[in-house]
Amino acid sequence: MVKLVTLDDIAAAAQRIAADIVRTPLLPARWADPVRPVWLKPENLQPIGAFKIRGAFNALGGLDAAVRAAGVVTYSSGNHAQAVAYAAAAYGVTAHIVMPEETPAVKVQATRSHGAHVVLCEAGERESVAAELVESTGGVLVPPFDHPDVIAGQGTIGLEIAQDLPDVATVLVPISGGGLASGVGTAIRALCPRAEVIGVEPELAADTAESLAAGALVDWPVAQRNRTIADGLRSTPSALTFAHLQKVLDDVVTVTEDEIRSAVRELANRAHLVTEPSGAVALAGYRKVATSPGPAAVIVSGGNVEPSLLADILSGSQ
Amino acid sequence: MVKLVTLDDIAAAAQRIAADIVRTPLLPARWADPVRPVWLKPENLQPIGAFKIRGAFNALGGLDAAVRAAGVVTYSSGNHAQAVAYAAAAYGVTAHIVMPEETPAVKVQATRSHGAHVVLCEAGERESVAAELVESTGGVLVPPFDHPDVIAGQGTIGLEIAQDLPDVATVLVPISGGGLASGVGTAIRALCPRAEVIGVEPELAADTAESLAAGALVDWPVAQRNRTIADGLRSTPSALTFAHLQKVLDDVVTVTEDEIRSAVRELANRAHLVTEPSGAVALAGYRKVATSPGPAAVIVSGGNVEPSLLADILSGSQ
Repeated sequence: MVKLVTLDDIAAAAQRIAADIVRTPLLPARWADPVRPVWLKPENLQPIGAFKIRGAFNALGGLDAAVRAAGVVTYSSGNHAQAVAYAAAAYGVTAHIVMPEETPAVKVQATRSHGAHVVLCEAGERESVAAELVESTGGVLVPPFDHPDVIAGQGTIGLEIAQDLPDVATVLVPISGGGLASGVGTAIRALCPRAEVIGVEPELAADTAESLAAGALVDWPVAQRNRTIADGLRSTPSALTFAHLQKVLDDVVTVTEDEIRSAVRELANRAHLVTEPSGAVALAGYRKVATSPGPAAVIVSGGNVEPSLLADILSGSQ
Repeated sequence: MVKLVTLDDIAAAAQRIAADIVRTPLLPARWADPVRPVWLKPENLQPIGAFKIRGAFNALGGLDAAVRAAGVVTYSSGNHAQAVAYAAAAYGVTAHIVMPEETPAVKVQATRSHGAHVVLCEAGERESVAAELVESTGGVLVPPFDHPDVIAGQGTIGLEIAQDLPDVATVLVPISGGGLASGVGTAIRALCPRAEVIGVEPELAADTAESLAAGALVDWPVAQRNRTIADGLRSTPSALTFAHLQKVLDDVVTVTEDEIRSAVRELANRAHLVTEPSGAVALAGYRKVATSPGPAAVIVSGGNVEPSLLADILSGSQ
């Protein structure tokens, strides 16, 4: 029986990370719906450009200072890499980040720019290389989502939504490894029990939708999940996050690649937010949900998009 | 002797408009300076995508309800048009907006989408047409900047900067008609007397820099000011705003068209903010200022850029 994160854990995380994150406002998005109030939670405005900074600061902040001094280790080719590197720099400790060799140079460079040591490895070996680094450096592993402190940190987004919009009726949250959805769902279930929490996945990486329908984790090969343009949504839940998702999600909707691209365009042109495809899926999901008439909160989870891809998407048609 | 807006006026405006605007956070921008803390004030995230909504709500909110019921009138081809249309809709009163015939259709449409009546006229006649509408409709004129309530509304941005960053050392603010700079400068002078307030103008519309150097308003023909890509910065101060600017600004710096385009790109790629050229000039100005080592606040004033122009700027090189 796994132990689930609680509202108290999330409230403690909120206090712990308050000085290090941006308390993002809810932005009204009247253009998104002529009738229903829609609000955006723009986590792309965080330092390092994504919500991942919340979990990283909560995980590092939760370590005993003497333990933390030995440094931290993680594996990620995406926003979690930058988040851990950034948080480690803020705490003045060493970070080793394991990335697959095929990681775009710009992401390696961004991670190094925060002072982290990047260790490149073959795809599929990153977890074992990270485990070796934990052994050799004495550092602590900060996994991208499979950890209660990471889940609690991401859950502070749900806490803030409940504080700012207590009558929220629907919360839309992207799903990949499930850390964000687990934390947000836990907070919303506790504070706004009548609200529905809806996960959003790309059709091309809809492993969680299938797993929840099956009642057990279904394995989608990584090559299959990697087809989506939403490169932050190619992970699959762990036993820990899946247990949360089974409890806190009302539904999962899936969106097409075209719908994701349209949402990136809408967020740029109407909300003046630059988003990565993964950061825009929750808005795409909003379009697919038959919901109650109350206020909806859409989590815009990140903005780290290659400039050339952004220009391509923005110059595209519907 | 003109009567200048006071801190009390701005504090009253903040209370009056609180429910209608987004209380924008200050966003840390470490990428903007390796040493000095730089913070962005993202007013492009307001409803209608620009700071103008603050002045519009304060002007409408300051009217006696019976007077306001007769409706409002203004002239603008830009963000003030949408701001007044939006605020009038919120108050349930009629808005007549005078726009030059050559206004892009998308801006006319955006203004109409808030329920306003758009009256097209020949360029150069918009003020007289607006005066006729005031006469015929009995509505109240809400000018784009030449009004104490508009200045006080825009000044709430300075109040928020002072609240969130009390040790701010430098504030950078774009200048066009001067309403924003007048209000922000008044708040900063009163609350952070040791901070410097620096206006930023395009070189191609640097009438205020020249006027302040001359000690009197210098006329730049509109055709000259219209050369800049920053279409929100083509106005020129009134006697009222110029009197404020003379008192509250420490300096004005000017920026080139290339510097403006680079700032739009940086704000998109590093801060994940979509800005119009006018909205990015203050960041461009930051690059030109030799300043003290304390924290700097850069006002990102608006995000209403044509999608095609944005795509063009983002795909450009340095």
